[in-house]
Amino acid sequence: MSEKITLEELKSSFRDVIDFPKEGIVFKDITTALKRPEIFRHLVDELYEKYKDLGITKVVGIESRGFILGAALAYRLGAGFVLVRKEGKLPADTHKKSYALEYGSDTIEVHKDAIDKGETVLVHDDLLATGGTAAATLDLIKVFEPKKVYASFIIELAFLKGKDALGESEELDIFSLVSF
Amino acid sequence: MSEKITLEELKSSFRDVIDFPKEGIVFKDITTALKRPEIFRHLVDELYEKYKDLGITKVVGIESRGFILGAALAYRLGAGFVLVRKEGKLPADTHKKSYALEYGSDTIEVHKDAIDKGETVLVHDDLLATGGTAAATLDLIKVFEPKKVYASFIIELAFLKGKDALGESEELDIFSLVSF
Repeated sequence: MSEKITLEELKSSFRDVIDFPKEGIVFKDITTALKRPEIFRHLVDELYEKYKDLGITKVVGIESRGFILGAALAYRLGAGFVLVRKEGKLPADTHKKSYALEYGSDTIEVHKDAIDKGETVLVHDDLLATGGTAAATLDLIKVFEPKKVYASFIIELAFLKGKDALGESEELDIFSLVSF
Repeated sequence: MSEKITLEELKSSFRDVIDFPKEGIVFKDITTALKRPEIFRHLVDELYEKYKDLGITKVVGIESRGFILGAALAYRLGAGFVLVRKEGKLPADTHKKSYALEYGSDTIEVHKDAIDKGETVLVHDDLLATGGTAAATLDLIKVFEPKKVYASFIIELAFLKGKDALGESEELDIFSLVSF
């Protein structure tokens, strides 16, 4: 389906932005990859190939960059799409989960009717860094008693050990397309 | 491609949430549609059928619900995907556009390298209400000198006359899947 894109081409399709969002951080900007049709297609197709036979019925996208590949992937997989958002943005009844940040804390929500018991769920975000938001999301969706949960990322910053924060296990399969 | 979904089924797949985000507003919640695989697929396929032969090379999604269908549609069309975001969220050099709200103002941004001159662009958001953000987005992307611009929405609240705010013309084609 997709043209052959090498891992080197893929890695170089992202842009490093120095000191964003604050000094000392090198931000991996995915917009330079998403705007290129052949790279965007490749990202979706690679994830589709990995997950196509696993019976995934819901893809959960983490606001807001996780909506992008998450939605395209849900479409490709023939799954439904579910939004995990910051507090106050979802209009109906929600389950909430707060988690610690470097300074302070944050809260995410999901609609109570988003997922049914026993579904197979793929959680998607663009970047796995320290894993705080993703860990909170995985914790949040446990309330639905899913049969199996997968977590996918475009980019993993391996030196930040996000996979450890998520707790990879028999119940949880974690995958990233690119590791830096 | 998609199962046959009637307009009535589609309309009833959205949820009305009373008094969100504030008193007196009836919010059209699309999450009840997106979570259903057959409805989600239908939404993307209907937009694909409309735009498939128009030479669209970039789909612009308006943060953040516009990312959802926008990205799935970009994938389906074989186009690149571009993000329009609120101020301060895009990491590299941007073009900015401020616009008036009921109280105060807001600013949106797009990366300066997001679109090339002469491209055919489809702007997508989930909802066309008064059209403030969409009008600002259409104004913002004029700087790229696109060949032609299309604007698509899942839902149009026709009584708010958003189409007038956008200024439908020979240069701008506006379309919504559902009108209330």
